[in-house]
Amino acid sequence: MFEEFLDNKNSWINQGDSSPGVVFSSRLRLARNLSDFFFPSCLGPEAVEKLIDRFKDPSSYLGGNGNFAFIRMADLNVIDKEFLLERHLISRNFFSMNKGGLVFSQDERVSVMVSEEDHLRIQVVEAGFNLEKGWQKLNKVDDQISQSFDYAFLPELGYLTSCPTNTGTALRASCMLHLPGLILTQKIEKVFNFLNKISFTIRGLFGEGSQALGNFFQISNQISLGLKEEEVIDNLTRVVTQVIQHELDARQALQAKHKISLEDIVWRALGIARNSRLINCKEALAHLSALFLGIDLGIIKDIEKETVNNLFIVIQSAHLQKLEGKPLNRNERDYFRAEMLREKLN
Amino acid sequence: MFEEFLDNKNSWINQGDSSPGVVFSSRLRLARNLSDFFFPSCLGPEAVEKLIDRFKDPSSYLGGNGNFAFIRMADLNVIDKEFLLERHLISRNFFSMNKGGLVFSQDERVSVMVSEEDHLRIQVVEAGFNLEKGWQKLNKVDDQISQSFDYAFLPELGYLTSCPTNTGTALRASCMLHLPGLILTQKIEKVFNFLNKISFTIRGLFGEGSQALGNFFQISNQISLGLKEEEVIDNLTRVVTQVIQHELDARQALQAKHKISLEDIVWRALGIARNSRLINCKEALAHLSALFLGIDLGIIKDIEKETVNNLFIVIQSAHLQKLEGKPLNRNERDYFRAEMLREKLN
Repeated sequence: MFEEFLDNKNSWINQGDSSPGVVFSSRLRLARNLSDFFFPSCLGPEAVEKLIDRFKDPSSYLGGNGNFAFIRMADLNVIDKEFLLERHLISRNFFSMNKGGLVFSQDERVSVMVSEEDHLRIQVVEAGFNLEKGWQKLNKVDDQISQSFDYAFLPELGYLTSCPTNTGTALRASCMLHLPGLILTQKIEKVFNFLNKISFTIRGLFGEGSQALGNFFQISNQISLGLKEEEVIDNLTRVVTQVIQHELDARQALQAKHKISLEDIVWRALGIARNSRLINCKEALAHLSALFLGIDLGIIKDIEKETVNNLFIVIQSAHLQKLEGKPLNRNERDYFRAEMLREKLN
Repeated sequence: MFEEFLDNKNSWINQGDSSPGVVFSSRLRLARNLSDFFFPSCLGPEAVEKLIDRFKDPSSYLGGNGNFAFIRMADLNVIDKEFLLERHLISRNFFSMNKGGLVFSQDERVSVMVSEEDHLRIQVVEAGFNLEKGWQKLNKVDDQISQSFDYAFLPELGYLTSCPTNTGTALRASCMLHLPGLILTQKIEKVFNFLNKISFTIRGLFGEGSQALGNFFQISNQISLGLKEEEVIDNLTRVVTQVIQHELDARQALQAKHKISLEDIVWRALGIARNSRLINCKEALAHLSALFLGIDLGIIKDIEKETVNNLFIVIQSAHLQKLEGKPLNRNERDYFRAEMLREKLN
């Protein structure tokens, strides 16, 4: 399953911004609940099935010339589910639940988790720093769905959600930032403390509770209630713009004061990525992060940024297993990961 | 000074054995004292000068068509002295003493420290496992010197030396072994315990008290008194032959059971050596050790063993400073060391 995604030229994953990029992707999601079902946590298995059934035919409520597909999570094996997680199409929470369904567009920009924490978690992802574009698309998808379904909504509160912190617009916007400069200059903590103070959340590569692999950090709004959608987006845009500037300043300082050390980090990363025979995911992400930085700063000139963009995704465990067409143990994954890095970077 | 050594094609350093080599070099030294001087530790500065003066014209007692040179240690700056240490022409002890003189042949195979712990420490070095050849040469040099000087010798004890453990033949024989296989298979300690039990000494790259850099270990005889020269050499030859076999067995086991991990270590070392921009001596030696092993095992095919042989010596601090023609701080040395590795290995 999903093999067609591995070489999906339409996917946002393969259309990364090639300009000196701090923002890897922009993501927006709306939580929506139907008025005639309890929240998912209170639904028994049969009710969940009934809920899912309502969304099993995306063309009926999203149109789109068959561009949308639907799958039941229970029909997937663990590698399939991990694969979706690695492509950021489902949440870690949804991955663990092993129920519900997923609606997704062929370009992987739109996905709807059915029966996650809320009945619907509608998500739009765009490559690069494109919150406004993403919001336009998400708003449109939300409008379309709302024409076929009756959302739980109270004029004085807004959209009702399973967790009260989401109530209101139920919009969460986030950007995935690549911040090696702030890490290397040890300024990251200062920036994060500031973000916390003004109520923004910082998380690792896979959201809640995940590690900051490959120097990737996800910044999102903590407060939704009482704000209009445009305010949520404007606030995040303003904050991310500031973090980008800090990151670019840090990179400039590194180039001015630690040019050789910086080049050393970048070239060693390339040397290892081009030569290793066994490499785990965490180490590979660290080297790809250094390559990404090296390309941004013009230290490395013979590697396309798109290549590294894509490697960030495909060196992950489930992707390697999809590519090899069989389950792999840890050692085998380390072997094929190293092989893939050598192939794509040499 | 000594710039001519940097590209000395005659030096044993550039004539390493190109067969799968465990033994990097074989070294033999004799301690000799003149009968009409106190031991060096009891000599005042003037007496030391008188002693040195006797040896300042090597052609008068060694002949050799001007192939031998003489220098006073006090005439050398610290980089010059470190340079001699790095080429194993003087001992660490002699380096620190800052007095005495050195006689050495142009091919660096023969050197005589005058007024180290004994009046004379006569040394011969050969590349590879060549104790017998080295001993023939050393014996000849000793005979020549003894024709011009009167050694302190007692028929019942043999040659008298400053430290009683050397008395007798006053011969110390040692081999420098490259033992990455025993390190990787974690069998090195077992081998060392055995060697200690049968009274052989194991030391690091620069003899007494030095670290085992680059997986190099020096094995030498502990007991000299009561043994004939040939017995000392035979004993060491037998023991080193055993250690070589253990090392080759370890390498074979690694190739049979951990082929990919081994290749990973070797290729990563090459990747880093070919790409780094800053590298300290200890790390560089570790990677060169892996390359050496990789060439021996046929994993790396496009690098000459002689290149790595030579790099082991020239990446050292004083060598780098000689090559650049100026004193370098630690950061500069790391920079030029990385540059040298890239140049020679790409």
